[in-house]
Amino acid sequence: MQPDTVVKNAFVYNTFTQTFEKKHVYIAEGKFYHISLDELECENVIDATGKYMIPGLIDIHMHIESSMTIPTEFSKAVLRHGTTTVVADPHEICNVKGIEGIESYMSQDTVLDIFYGIPSSVPSTNRDLETTGGCILPQNVSRLVNNPKVLCLGEVMNFNDLTKDGDSLTRNIISVCQHYDRAMLIEGHCPKISGLDLSKYLYYGVDADHTMQSPESIYEKITNGMFMEIQRKSLSKENVDVLVSHRFYEYFALVTDDVSADHLALGHLNENVRLAHQLGMPMEQAIYCATYTPARRMHLIDRGTIAPGKLADFILLDNVEEFVISAVYKKGVSVTQLHETSASFPESFYHTICCPMAEEEDFDIVCDTDRPYVVCNVIEIDPHAYFTKRVRMEVPVADGKLQWEKTDLALLTVFERYTGKKSVAYALVKNTLKRGAVGSSWTHDHHNVMVMGRNKKDMKLVQNAIVENQGGYAVADGEIKAFASLQVGGIVSDKPLEQLAESLCNVRNELTAVGYDHDNSVMSFATLSLPVSPEIKVTDKGIVDTYSQKIIPLWEK
Amino acid sequence: MQPDTVVKNAFVYNTFTQTFEKKHVYIAEGKFYHISLDELECENVIDATGKYMIPGLIDIHMHIESSMTIPTEFSKAVLRHGTTTVVADPHEICNVKGIEGIESYMSQDTVLDIFYGIPSSVPSTNRDLETTGGCILPQNVSRLVNNPKVLCLGEVMNFNDLTKDGDSLTRNIISVCQHYDRAMLIEGHCPKISGLDLSKYLYYGVDADHTMQSPESIYEKITNGMFMEIQRKSLSKENVDVLVSHRFYEYFALVTDDVSADHLALGHLNENVRLAHQLGMPMEQAIYCATYTPARRMHLIDRGTIAPGKLADFILLDNVEEFVISAVYKKGVSVTQLHETSASFPESFYHTICCPMAEEEDFDIVCDTDRPYVVCNVIEIDPHAYFTKRVRMEVPVADGKLQWEKTDLALLTVFERYTGKKSVAYALVKNTLKRGAVGSSWTHDHHNVMVMGRNKKDMKLVQNAIVENQGGYAVADGEIKAFASLQVGGIVSDKPLEQLAESLCNVRNELTAVGYDHDNSVMSFATLSLPVSPEIKVTDKGIVDTYSQKIIPLWEK
Repeated sequence: MQPDTVVKNAFVYNTFTQTFEKKHVYIAEGKFYHISLDELECENVIDATGKYMIPGLIDIHMHIESSMTIPTEFSKAVLRHGTTTVVADPHEICNVKGIEGIESYMSQDTVLDIFYGIPSSVPSTNRDLETTGGCILPQNVSRLVNNPKVLCLGEVMNFNDLTKDGDSLTRNIISVCQHYDRAMLIEGHCPKISGLDLSKYLYYGVDADHTMQSPESIYEKITNGMFMEIQRKSLSKENVDVLVSHRFYEYFALVTDDVSADHLALGHLNENVRLAHQLGMPMEQAIYCATYTPARRMHLIDRGTIAPGKLADFILLDNVEEFVISAVYKKGVSVTQLHETSASFPESFYHTICCPMAEEEDFDIVCDTDRPYVVCNVIEIDPHAYFTKRVRMEVPVADGKLQWEKTDLALLTVFERYTGKKSVAYALVKNTLKRGAVGSSWTHDHHNVMVMGRNKKDMKLVQNAIVENQGGYAVADGEIKAFASLQVGGIVSDKPLEQLAESLCNVRNELTAVGYDHDNSVMSFATLSLPVSPEIKVTDKGIVDTYSQKIIPLWEK
Repeated sequence: MQPDTVVKNAFVYNTFTQTFEKKHVYIAEGKFYHISLDELECENVIDATGKYMIPGLIDIHMHIESSMTIPTEFSKAVLRHGTTTVVADPHEICNVKGIEGIESYMSQDTVLDIFYGIPSSVPSTNRDLETTGGCILPQNVSRLVNNPKVLCLGEVMNFNDLTKDGDSLTRNIISVCQHYDRAMLIEGHCPKISGLDLSKYLYYGVDADHTMQSPESIYEKITNGMFMEIQRKSLSKENVDVLVSHRFYEYFALVTDDVSADHLALGHLNENVRLAHQLGMPMEQAIYCATYTPARRMHLIDRGTIAPGKLADFILLDNVEEFVISAVYKKGVSVTQLHETSASFPESFYHTICCPMAEEEDFDIVCDTDRPYVVCNVIEIDPHAYFTKRVRMEVPVADGKLQWEKTDLALLTVFERYTGKKSVAYALVKNTLKRGAVGSSWTHDHHNVMVMGRNKKDMKLVQNAIVENQGGYAVADGEIKAFASLQVGGIVSDKPLEQLAESLCNVRNELTAVGYDHDNSVMSFATLSLPVSPEIKVTDKGIVDTYSQKIIPLWEK
C-alpha cells in the first residue's frame, strides 16, 4: 500500500493531545495512512500551508426530516459546513410511513455518511393519544437491527411506558435490540427528569439525552452515567461553564437535533462548535466533542480522528478561532468534486394526506352550556422555548358555540390525516398569532394536519391548501401568503434545498407578519403537537397533559 | 421496579468526577438502581460504613491458558481479587485444538463474566514456520463472530502478513470481522514497531497493543490513535510518568495478559492497579483505567461504573491507597456465596501429545564438517525480558557431532507433537541452565514439546515424562524433580488451582535450583518458542529470525 494523496504543511489537530502540530498527512485509498514530517512520494499534493486541519464533524443526534428535505439534498447542504457523518433518527418519516419510510431513507445513496437510529417511539405515546401512519413494534426492530447502517435505538421518549410496572412496549423494543447486539446504544429524550426518576430511566439502559439542559441537569445526568448531547438551545454560558469547569469533555458531544431548511444555508454543526467556543469552551475541546466523542459514543471506530487507518474525512480551516472553513474533504476528496445521485421515493409517498376538504363550520366549536362563558384549558406558548404552559381562561359562549374569534386566543385544529375520516381535535392558544392562520402537515411527531388561526376563513384556506398540495407549511391572511410544499410523505420536499429554503423563509416572514413571536416560529408551531414535550400539547385525539399522559377537555364542564 | 439491596454509607467512586462521595447505592435484580442519599426500603442491607466502593475490575487483554487452568478454576481465583469481567483470547487452546478448542472454553459456565476475542493468528506465523494442532481461517471467524460472547478480534501478531502486498490471510480475517460487525475491535501485538511501520499496522484497523512499552512507544502509539493495554511488565516509573503527565487516561487500560497459576493466589489485575499507583498514578485514575476505559474500549456498555442501569459488580475496599479488598460482589451478590458449576471437556482433549518416545540419541546433533568447531546461531536469554538476542558462538565438533555438552550452552529441542511423526528441531541457548533439564508442552503458541538441558539423560527424562503424562511442565536433575501435570490439550490442568499452583511452584523452585536465572523463569522458557517476539526463537521447524520471518541454520556452513 502506497499513499496517493498528501496534505502538506497543515497544522494538524491531534485528538489525543488536543493540540495542533505542523505535519504532512498522507492518505491512501480514502483513509489516513501516515501523519509525520516524513517525505513520501504522492500523486496528489494538497498544499495546506497556513491552514488548520481537523477531522470532519460528526453529528450523532439529528433528524433529516426536521430540515424538511431528503437525504441527498441534506448531504449537499451540510458537507460544505464540514459535517461528514451523521446519525439520523428517521422517526418523522416513520410516523407517516412506518418501516417503509425508514427504509426509503436508508436506501438513498449520499456522499455524506448517514447512519441511523431505529425510531423507538412511534407513535411518541400510544394509539389512544395520537393517530399515526406507522408504528414501531418489536418485530420491526428485529428487521432493522442488523442493517449495517443502524447504530442505535433512537430517542426513547415515553418515560411513563419505559418505567411503568407490567408489560412495556418500550422495554420490549430495548430487549430486542440488546438481544441482537449487546453493544447497541439506547438514546434518550428526558427533559426535566431528575432524581429517582432519572435513575429509573437510566436503569433500563437509556443513557443519552439531547433535550434542553440546565447546569444542574448536566451535572446530575453526567455523574449518573448519562451521555449528554448538547444542541444549540442547550449552549448557554452557564451550561458551557459546567462542562468546562468539570472537564466533562469525554461525556458529551455537540449535536444539532433539528435545523430548519432555511437555516442550513448558514451552517450546521460548525455553528455549534463556534458558539461553544464563544461561550468559553477552548476550541480544541469543542472540536474534540464534535469529532471524537460522538464517534466513540456511536462505536464508529473507523473515524473521528486524524490517525492512520481512520477515514480521511477532514476540514481545512483558514482560521481556527473563528472556525472559518476553507475546504472539506470526504474520504480524501474535496466535496466540491463529489456529486449526489438522484433521490427516488415510491409513488405512494406522494399521496399521504387523506383528509376530506374542510368547510368553515369545521372550525366552529359546539358548546352545550347555558352559561355565558366556560373555563377553558389553554396552551400558552413560551417565545423562547418549545415547552408550553397550561393556563385556565374564561371564553364566551353564544348560540351554542364557543366565541373564540372574539378573544385574543387562536383556535388550533388537528385534522387526522391517515384514515380518510373527518376527525378534528380542537385547542385554544395564547401568545400567538395576531391575525390570519398558519398550518402544516409537518407536526411533531404524528404529522396530522394542524392549523392555528384567528378566523375561520383563513384557517379553511390553509387547511385545504395543505390537503390539495398533499403536504406543506402555509400562512394565510385573507389569502395564502406563503406556502412551502412538502410532498414526500407530506413532510419533506424532494426539490432543491434552495427552493425549499426560500419558500420556508417566506413562511417564517409571513408568520412574523401575522404576529407569531418566537425565536424559531416554524419549529415552535410544529412542536405544539408533540405529546411528550412539557406540558400541554395537542394531537388529533385532543389536548394532552404531557405529564399525566391523559387527554384533558377543552373546557371544564 | 423496586430495589432489593442497598449498600449503605460507602464512599462511592464516581467515574465521571473521579472522586469518592458518601452515598447509598441501591441495587435491583443485579443492576445498580439509584445512587443517592435518599432512604428507600430494601430487603438486604449491606453496611459499608467506612468502606470505599468501586466498580469490579475489567481485564480486557488476557489469556486464561496462561494460568494453565480452565475457566471455572480461573473464575474462582480472580473474583476474590476483584476482577469481575475479562476478555480472554483463547489462542493457546486454539493452537492445540482449533475452533473446537475455542468453543470448549466458551461453553463453560462461570460466575466471572468471560468474553472472548477470536484468535486472529493461529498459527502465529504460518505452516512453514510452525506446526500447530489448529488454525484460524476466515470461515472459522465467520462462525464465531456473531457469538454474543465475542467482543473483538484477538491480537494480530503477524506484522509481515498484515502489511505485505498481495493476498494476506490476516487482512482477510479482519475483513470478515468488519463485514459482520463494523464496530468490532481489532486487537494488536506490535512490539518495537514505530514510525511508518506503526502507521501501516494501524492502517489496516489494528489499533490496540499490549506488548512491552517504553515512554516513547506509549507517546507515539497513543498520539497515532492506538489504545494502550498496559500490563505489569510495562508498569515502570518512566511509563507511568508519560501516562500521567499527558493525562492519557482515556486511551489506556490496565491489563494482565499472562498470570502464572502460582501467582493467581497472590493477586490479579488488582496488583497492577496498586503498582500503577505506587509508581505515581493517582489511585482514582488507576481505578478508572481498570474499570471504565477497558469497558468502553470493548463496548461493554452495561458495566464499568457505579451508575444506574449498570451491572452491580463492585468491590468494597478497606483502604483505597493500599487497595485492600474487603469484599467483592458480582451482580449484587457476594462472590463468597456464588459457586462454580463443574467443568467438562471432550475426552479427545486428554490425548493430544502424539510424539514417539525419545531416545538419548535424539539429543545428538550430527555435524558434517571437517573443522574442529562451527559458528552457531545461539539464542541469548535476557533475564529481565522475554525478548532474546541472536549471538554467534563457536562450538566444538568431534566424531561428526556438535559437542554441545562440553560448552556452557544448553541444547534446546522441539519435538513436533501433532502428527505422530518424530520430527525434532534443535537450537543452542546462552544464559540459562547450569545443569539438568526443563521441558514443557506449554510452549507459546504452537505448544510442541520443548526441552532444554545440559545433558541428554535429563532431557530424555523430561521429554518422556511429558509424553507419558499427555502434557506437563517438568524439571529433571538426575531424576524428575518437579512435574506440573497439564492434561487438557497438554497445556492446562482441570485440577483445583491450588494443586496446580503447588506443582508449578515446585517447577519454579527447581528451575532456580538448576540455575535458570529469570524474573519469571516459567514464562521465559515457554516464550523461547514464540516466533513473533523479538528476535530469535525456535519452533518444530527450526530457529526463526523473528524480524525476517525466516528459518536460520543452527550452524553456519
